[in-house]
Amino acid sequence: MSSVRKYAVIVAGGKGVRMGTDIPKQFLPLLGVPMLCHCIQAFIHTYRDINIILVAPESQLHSTETIVKSYVGPLHLTSVAGGETRFHSVQNGLRKIEKKGIVFVHDGVRPLVSANLIKRCYKQALELGSAIPVIQCTDSLRVVNEDGLSSPLNREQVRLVQTPQTFLTDIILPAFDQEYNVNFTDEATVVEATGQSIHLIEGERDNIKITNPGDMLIADTLLKSS
Amino acid sequence: MSSVRKYAVIVAGGKGVRMGTDIPKQFLPLLGVPMLCHCIQAFIHTYRDINIILVAPESQLHSTETIVKSYVGPLHLTSVAGGETRFHSVQNGLRKIEKKGIVFVHDGVRPLVSANLIKRCYKQALELGSAIPVIQCTDSLRVVNEDGLSSPLNREQVRLVQTPQTFLTDIILPAFDQEYNVNFTDEATVVEATGQSIHLIEGERDNIKITNPGDMLIADTLLKSS
Repeated sequence: MSSVRKYAVIVAGGKGVRMGTDIPKQFLPLLGVPMLCHCIQAFIHTYRDINIILVAPESQLHSTETIVKSYVGPLHLTSVAGGETRFHSVQNGLRKIEKKGIVFVHDGVRPLVSANLIKRCYKQALELGSAIPVIQCTDSLRVVNEDGLSSPLNREQVRLVQTPQTFLTDIILPAFDQEYNVNFTDEATVVEATGQSIHLIEGERDNIKITNPGDMLIADTLLKSS
Repeated sequence: MSSVRKYAVIVAGGKGVRMGTDIPKQFLPLLGVPMLCHCIQAFIHTYRDINIILVAPESQLHSTETIVKSYVGPLHLTSVAGGETRFHSVQNGLRKIEKKGIVFVHDGVRPLVSANLIKRCYKQALELGSAIPVIQCTDSLRVVNEDGLSSPLNREQVRLVQTPQTFLTDIILPAFDQEYNVNFTDEATVVEATGQSIHLIEGERDNIKITNPGDMLIADTLLKSS
């Protein structure tokens, strides 16, 4: 195994509102294992020495850590409270990094991320500084304007952005020293604001984000077949 | 039942290339029934008197008709050969319409369309002239430029477009008399090119387009749970 340090910042911030349940969605079980633990396992199974930095709402920090430890087994785990926005949550996570290496920032609600994607992101980020997984869109697209009218968008040019968004520490850490800006919707936009260009990589269609109850069913099916 | 005539143009044009199978994907079975037949049944179960206009590649026209009749039971069915592009296929289908009414144009690979969505589209198209079902996008989006560079796109303003795209015949039939234009990627863009504005309506997340083998599994799961 190479000696490059690896960090996975796992953002587990959801409150479960859209899932119609009191349980934060990152704890909902898939094949009997909380979604969040599938995410963490994917990284640990790929790189056993990876440092997991778990970002969770302050009130759930202790319970999240307990759940993760009981399901995942031995791991290098640091937990930290989330912030107001995704930017602030990731920023809190990144502040736990003390040495150079590669950082994966991953949604705690994308439990289907594969070892293959994680490894490809790692290699590209090591070489080019970043790897942002994206996939083509299969539906037609429209843009809705402020007046409620809409116009078509060329879907050939549009990509759906996934995680893990992967970076060299030298690139992502300085970027998160910036002041917050509402346009920071993901890590790529934060890095770009420093003037760096980011590098896309082919994502995976199965690497879905669990947002609605129907997505749980889909994830369950995909996990069973994988 | 109202006396407004109803037509569903079902576009079954795929060749199955992306599915890794020799069977055109519209014939692949979901719960034992070809995907295309699920589409047709959805419309017939909603409006028993609806006229189904099936558009299929010329070489598959006869077999498609045979399969549909064996699975779907009694229906008002007209079949017509598809054309070079989706525009030409839909144009061929629309030319079979002789009287005024409401037209649904539906992808033969969206087998999960619900009666509720079909009825809502009908009502809105009757009132406003059109109903284009769209859903919000849950992933971040980027636009890839010709130089390979990409930039973020505000996902709050983007909608994924589904079918059935639904219109008054008075609006869609004249629109399809236009010369073909490469920007005609769906029916909404064709109608807009006549200077008409189109009206969006809330679509359904389950109303997915089957494009890859993984989508079959998802559709199967969603059908079983519905």
